[in-house]
Amino acid sequence: MRYRVKAELNYGLKGPCSFLFNVAALQNRFQHVTDESLHLEGGETPTEFMFNGARFHRTKSKGPKLRLEYQATVALEPEIEKNLDLPVRTLAELPEEVLVYLFPSRYCQSDSLLRFAQSEFMGKHLTGFQLVTHVCNWIYEKVAYQRGATTSITSAFDTVTERQGVCRDFAHLGIALCRALGIPARFVSAYAYGLNPPDFHAAFEAYLGDRWYMFDATRLSPQSSFVRVGMGRDAADTSFCTFFGPAAFEGMKVTMETDGDAKPQFVTQPITASD
Amino acid sequence: MRYRVKAELNYGLKGPCSFLFNVAALQNRFQHVTDESLHLEGGETPTEFMFNGARFHRTKSKGPKLRLEYQATVALEPEIEKNLDLPVRTLAELPEEVLVYLFPSRYCQSDSLLRFAQSEFMGKHLTGFQLVTHVCNWIYEKVAYQRGATTSITSAFDTVTERQGVCRDFAHLGIALCRALGIPARFVSAYAYGLNPPDFHAAFEAYLGDRWYMFDATRLSPQSSFVRVGMGRDAADTSFCTFFGPAAFEGMKVTMETDGDAKPQFVTQPITASD
Amino acid sequence: MRYRVKAELNYGLKGPCSFLFNVAALQNRFQHVTDESLHLEGGETPTEFMFNGARFHRTKSKGPKLRLEYQATVALEPEIEKNLDLPVRTLAELPEEVLVYLFPSRYCQSDSLLRFAQSEFMGKHLTGFQLVTHVCNWIYEKVAYQRGATTSITSAFDTVTERQGVCRDFAHLGIALCRALGIPARFVSAYAYGLNPPDFHAAFEAYLGDRWYMFDATRLSPQSSFVRVGMGRDAADTSFCTFFGPAAFEGMKVTMETDGDAKPQFVTQPITASD
Amino acid sequence: MRYRVKAELNYGLKGPCSFLFNVAALQNRFQHVTDESLHLEGGETPTEFMFNGARFHRTKSKGPKLRLEYQATVALEPEIEKNLDLPVRTLAELPEEVLVYLFPSRYCQSDSLLRFAQSEFMGKHLTGFQLVTHVCNWIYEKVAYQRGATTSITSAFDTVTERQGVCRDFAHLGIALCRALGIPARFVSAYAYGLNPPDFHAAFEAYLGDRWYMFDATRLSPQSSFVRVGMGRDAADTSFCTFFGPAAFEGMKVTMETDGDAKPQFVTQPITASD
Repeated sequence: MRYRVKAELNYGLKGPCSFLFNVAALQNRFQHVTDESLHLEGGETPTEFMFNGARFHRTKSKGPKLRLEYQATVALEPEIEKNLDLPVRTLAELPEEVLVYLFPSRYCQSDSLLRFAQSEFMGKHLTGFQLVTHVCNWIYEKVAYQRGATTSITSAFDTVTERQGVCRDFAHLGIALCRALGIPARFVSAYAYGLNPPDFHAAFEAYLGDRWYMFDATRLSPQSSFVRVGMGRDAADTSFCTFFGPAAFEGMKVTMETDGDAKPQFVTQPITASD
Repeated sequence: MRYRVKAELNYGLKGPCSFLFNVAALQNRFQHVTDESLHLEGGETPTEFMFNGARFHRTKSKGPKLRLEYQATVALEPEIEKNLDLPVRTLAELPEEVLVYLFPSRYCQSDSLLRFAQSEFMGKHLTGFQLVTHVCNWIYEKVAYQRGATTSITSAFDTVTERQGVCRDFAHLGIALCRALGIPARFVSAYAYGLNPPDFHAAFEAYLGDRWYMFDATRLSPQSSFVRVGMGRDAADTSFCTFFGPAAFEGMKVTMETDGDAKPQFVTQPITASD
Repeated sequence: MRYRVKAELNYGLKGPCSFLFNVAALQNRFQHVTDESLHLEGGETPTEFMFNGARFHRTKSKGPKLRLEYQATVALEPEIEKNLDLPVRTLAELPEEVLVYLFPSRYCQSDSLLRFAQSEFMGKHLTGFQLVTHVCNWIYEKVAYQRGATTSITSAFDTVTERQGVCRDFAHLGIALCRALGIPARFVSAYAYGLNPPDFHAAFEAYLGDRWYMFDATRLSPQSSFVRVGMGRDAADTSFCTFFGPAAFEGMKVTMETDGDAKPQFVTQPITASD
Repeated sequence: MRYRVKAELNYGLKGPCSFLFNVAALQNRFQHVTDESLHLEGGETPTEFMFNGARFHRTKSKGPKLRLEYQATVALEPEIEKNLDLPVRTLAELPEEVLVYLFPSRYCQSDSLLRFAQSEFMGKHLTGFQLVTHVCNWIYEKVAYQRGATTSITSAFDTVTERQGVCRDFAHLGIALCRALGIPARFVSAYAYGLNPPDFHAAFEAYLGDRWYMFDATRLSPQSSFVRVGMGRDAADTSFCTFFGPAAFEGMKVTMETDGDAKPQFVTQPITASD
């Protein structure tokens, strides 16, 4: 399916600032960017580079306002996995580059959640896919989706007890629980179809069998519609904008439309959208 | 100078466990491992791999006890930098692979420390080297080195207010403050000469000018004597042992000796020991 | 001066709930309630009682909505203290009933702030009044008044580093720092003149010499205009509404007007408004 | 049964300090102090006063060392309640002076635990006594009793997830969960028989029906042997020693012996030991 995504970000500046944006759609074999534009007002021509598997744009401000507008048309072909018996790999079996996604990170304190996760989820003789699905169902049932109850520094350690939050909090908790159960997990930022109000979305991937599979405990948007932007240990790695200097965020607008009549569907099988 | 380092780690196991060790001395142009041995009892022959710039050993347990003994002779040739005017690079100037060390991490919540760091350290017209030195002096003066007052989940956000801790807490605070000031910073684990009692040590590196420079706010051991083991965003990336399964840590012993008569000296200039 | 205060609180209920309100103006020799009314819709006739020096109203809900409307006319006669040399009393000198205000509380973790407070504020040979004024000035200068950056569980331990918040966060930090310096301090909730937008206000009192004196680090409203409602260890004791059961807060409206032409003035001397 | 309790506390001082001790056995109708002595070296003769239902001793230091030795013989007659149907009282039914024990406190953040507690424990149609017993059993089963894993600033919010700690952590979690369930709860410090190693103990009381009943989720000592010392919102109110000034704790020794042959028994019925 084809989607049209658009993001506008506005900043007010009281002096020279440096900006790092992570808003551009990824290019991979599941996701083809057929056309796109990135337009910047009030800053130097941005330079693009790949980092941590994602596309970043760097720039310096010129003047008192900075405005970025990104739009793209993206064709998605996520892969539905037929094998539901995907196992959890042991530390000894995992590829080297995946190991870092077992470690605790800024918002996913798997080290502090170890006893909780093992007491709540272990010993149920589940396959890897069943176990991560069980984690997602638990989050969906226990955590209330609630705007304004959390802030940008809320973490999985908070959410596991406070039990309210938004998509990013759901993703962080899913990641932290997976890591505490010995399953590598990473954060995914994306455009997602049908969010109300429209916004950037967050979900996560778990490493099962021999690759990454996507999970979203919020059930707010079909995973097959996610136009992926960034991947990392958690939201700290995939912020749509990191800046240094006297800048103030003055709002954004995100939109996403389908290019045709078909509506994306929710699936319960494992789904692959990155390598 | 040449050093002889040794580490013994012991674990009791109630079932099969996977282990990831990060205890072996790095090989780089400042640090030559002239001979070494890694001996493991109670586990499969470990496989070595490089990750995140460090040497890791992976194994699976066999039996109720696991014991690792590592020893090495290492010749150190750290480089003293003559240029004291090392500047802080802007976000736009930094190499891509360094950017991740600007992001907040598990124990270094630079996002939460932003206003504090800027209020306390900004606007003093210091060079980059002076600024990081100022951060280290501040930590040394304000934070009491105190065993037992902190735990393995204590973070920079705690230490900036509680003002007590051990080498790892000092390093985490230094890193978090540097990142909050726009300076990439990373954690370094090492063998260090003269610690009493002997133990693994922790320090940090800041990216200034065109490379990494080492800093240690504890002043417990000369930086020129550090035999470096791991580097990463914080202690979560450089744990000497990560395991999954029913293992219990049963103690360790770390020793370090000089090979000759010369004693390592403290230096106040920038020092380089990694690329 | 005479003030007219009014508060309306609205709740939606999904079942029977119990409510405890703390919105009525205190009666004491500095504050005379000349007329007042408390009107409740959707609940049983509330019973009033004094607790912890404040007036509470208790009720049970009847039906799907509960609405409280309180209004009062209050004449204020705060006392300006002439003695600026008010000392800090030692633990041994303090009245017994004041000691509890030295202990750490929910949002005022003076135990964790001890080293910070002593490093930052001790040893300056200040009188008690100067010391608390110094604490307030520090908060005013270092902490940004910022709506939406904090939540109802933000505490002094957060604010001392994050350095942003609202009146309640300013008060919590002032209290925690005073206690860490050995000065009993308590939270005060109040109606305050001139707030924009109008809202309940929060400030604090410190025990100096032989009584409580009021301090407000926000500088948003003259202390001489505060119509005091509750006092306690922190906001946990003085919530305008505590409930148990399936209730949801649906908004409130607070207003305050002067009865005459005179405008309340800011004062820099110690001011007393409770015993 | 009669018990002999003894506590010795030692402090090193670098200047004048004020001390507040809470180590003396309570006198009430369940607990008779038949003889006792409090001996202080290095301080002024302490003055005793009652506060918050407990006995406190205040003093100022003289000289570089302060040593307190307290001993007492205490006859205990706790009351076993026959009524197992003790109900939870609603906010509207509770005595006024009990309400404060519903509020969150320093180490018992019932506000943050609300959703967790209600999801885990509500809706099971239990009597009050069954509900608090269920909370205690849950804590006993989920939380590992582990010395050294927590510090003096560990709180119920930490323990509910980290799931390890000592008696004080168990008590804080029990209190926080009760409050989150609408049950007033308070902290109790005590001498307790049979602890190994001997130490001060902590437990909690919940208000059910028309009085306080004692609970101890650790199962380390029979509740009928507790010689009660202090009561309060949490450990912040019942610290065996609070001091201001340059003092350092240099260790303590606590002992407890029975006066006869009979051994105290564990009971599963409600037990009353304070009013």
